[in-house]
This record gives sequence, C-alpha cells and structure tokens, in this order.
Amino acid sequence: MDFIKQPMAIESRSMEIIAPYLSSLNLNDEELKIYSRIIHATGDVEYASIIKIHPFAISSTKSVIQRGGNIFTDVEMVRTGINKRNLKKFGGEVFCRISDDKVKIIAEKEKITRSMAAMRDFGKDLDGAIVAIGNAPTALFEVLRLVREEKIFPAVIIGVPVGFVGAADSKAKLAAQNEIPFITVNGTKGGSSIAVAIVNAILYLLDNSRS
Amino acid sequence: MDFIKQPMAIESRSMEIIAPYLSSLNLNDEELKIYSRIIHATGDVEYASIIKIHPFAISSTKSVIQRGGNIFTDVEMVRTGINKRNLKKFGGEVFCRISDDKVKIIAEKEKITRSMAAMRDFGKDLDGAIVAIGNAPTALFEVLRLVREEKIFPAVIIGVPVGFVGAADSKAKLAAQNEIPFITVNGTKGGSSIAVAIVNAILYLLDNSRS
Repeated sequence: MDFIKQPMAIESRSMEIIAPYLSSLNLNDEELKIYSRIIHATGDVEYASIIKIHPFAISSTKSVIQRGGNIFTDVEMVRTGINKRNLKKFGGEVFCRISDDKVKIIAEKEKITRSMAAMRDFGKDLDGAIVAIGNAPTALFEVLRLVREEKIFPAVIIGVPVGFVGAADSKAKLAAQNEIPFITVNGTKGGSSIAVAIVNAILYLLDNSRS
Repeated sequence: MDFIKQPMAIESRSMEIIAPYLSSLNLNDEELKIYSRIIHATGDVEYASIIKIHPFAISSTKSVIQRGGNIFTDVEMVRTGINKRNLKKFGGEVFCRISDDKVKIIAEKEKITRSMAAMRDFGKDLDGAIVAIGNAPTALFEVLRLVREEKIFPAVIIGVPVGFVGAADSKAKLAAQNEIPFITVNGTKGGSSIAVAIVNAILYLLDNSRS
C-alpha cells in the first residue's frame, strides 16, 4: 500500500488541503493556524464557518502560557490531548477534577453534572487562567456564573462543549458576554478534540516563536 | 440561568432529539445506540449517513469484552475516553503505546508515525482483540497490513481515523476487506471522540444486559 507515513509530510499536506477552505475568511496568521488545526482534527470543513475567536483571545492565551499559568479542563480527554510537554516548558500545568471524590460528592448532593461541580470547586483558581471546556455545556454555564456572580475572571475561555442539550445555548452565552475573551463555535458541534486542537495550536504558535 | 443540570436527564433528552435523524435508517436497537452515541459526542447529525457497521462487528466486540479481552488504541485520548471501569468488570484492559520509548525509536528509524509503529509493535497481541483507532490513518493501514501479510486477526477493528491525508482511503480499505468485522465512517470525518463513543456504547449495552 502506498500512503504518506512521515508525520511532518502528513501535517503539511493536510494544511495544504485545508487552506482553500479558509482563504476567503480574512484570517490573520494566528487565527489561520487555529482554524486549520480544528479542521485537521475533525475532518470537517464546516468548522470554517462556525468558529468564533474574540480579538483578544489568542494574545490572552499566549500570555497566560508564557507566564507559566495553568489550564483547567472539564474532562480527562481534554487534559490528555493537550501537549503538556510544550506547556511545561513555560511552567504551566493542566488540571481536571471530574474524577475527584470531592467533586463526585458535590455533584451527587447538588444533582448537577460532575464537570459542573468540578468548575465550581476550582473557583478562585480560574482567576487569570485558561479554561478549556470540550464536553459539558453545564461546565461552561457554571464558569459564566462564576464570572457574573462571583467575580472570578479567567484570562480566556476556550468553550466548545458539544451536543443537543445546552451546548449551543452555553456557547451563545459565552460569545455574548464581553468580560472574558473567548474561542468558541456556533451550534451543536464541538468536543474534546476541538478544545485540544485550539490549545495545541496556540502552544505551537509559541513554540515556533521561541525557536 | 435555567438549563438541565442532571446527567441522566441531559442524556435522555439528547437521545430524544437525535432519534428522528435515525428513524429512517432501519437500525436494530444495538446499532441505534452506537449511532446515537456518535451523534451525541460530535453534535453532528451528518454521521447518520456515513457510519458503517459490519453485521458481526457488535457481537464480536461484545464477546471479546465478555471474555476479558483487551482493547488496543492508537492514541492516548482514545485510551482516556474509554470507560475502563466498565471494561474492567469483565477483566479487560486498554493499551496504547504511542508514548513508549521503544515505539519512538522504531518510528524515527523507519520514518513512520508513532501510532503506526505502535500497531506494528503490538503485533500478535492484536490477535482476537479489539483495535480502536481514532486518529491516525497510518495506524489503520498498518493493522490492515498485519492482517494481510502477517495473518494477525483482531476480532474487530473500530477504525475511525480523521483528516485529509489517508483517512478516507484507510477507512475505505477497512470497509472493503472481508476478513475482520469493522465499524467505521466514510470520508474525512472521524476522531478520538468517535472511537470512544463506539466502544463506550457497546460497553453500555453489556452493562445494561447484566443489570
């Protein structure tokens, strides 16, 4: 069988194929990297028309990483997918508490999802940090509540929860608020792979600017 | 803010919303669970028209799990997402070698991807097991080579690699062979979340049939 086996060749060929879908969007180089990586990670060019990046979101994410700030995720798949080797060069870590016993107890007591309870439990830790939500609309709703009611201010919210129950609403609320820079997508689509693609695209931007 | 916070209510509401998209497809109950869970995990109803399930794939996956067989994945996100608590009830484990030093060395020496090297390194371990590939077309091509050239026969191949370089081809090859039952999707779409959705849907089928 004849197929491309070399990792860098696969990536550059993939980016070549994706480029025409993005050429009419007037993206800057950094936005282009994020869009490309999402489409590369999903095989779905429709993302070109549903991604929303707040003008300060990329610079804000970069500056958190550069000062060794942390990333807080809703689910383990997002934590797993983030390039922790690149993040660690700057000193940051990725946290996910969905499986913590304390969070399970909060979730059962309050009759809420564990990812929602986990965000509540992070609380003040989210101040000035990166929040990356790839799965649970309830987690994103909770972070937006923490901003509004408890004056906890993440530096950026990467919010791409997925599905038919609350996902589109939670992302529309994220995009409608004007306190926290955000990266999101419209509608029902989303997921851990998209959150990971966004974070890793920004980590690569920083890595390339260092070398 | 008013939104559904209770995990079981979210899931059942989601399945209600997805059901109409599947009603014309003549799926049996087990296929319906797999389709629903993929669409739930991606927020993308287009999957309804691109999923392909070999007639023996679900029963074959169930019987591997029930006899305590193992699952071999291409990437860590697939390993992370699989419900290992449910799998462990039967005695099985999930293996991923993409980060093993030995695999890195093979990949560099052979100028192939690490996920491809990992499948080659699993070799005979794949006999009678479940292979779940969510990311790398090269890993799927390699498993198909192991079947053809080295007479290694997984019990089922869940192959949903993603992207624009080899993914559609590798999945078409999987669907065209007639030695190993498979679950796949047509075209460029796919990803870790889809592989995880499929495996977990089948784990839930077994879990429900036990209780």
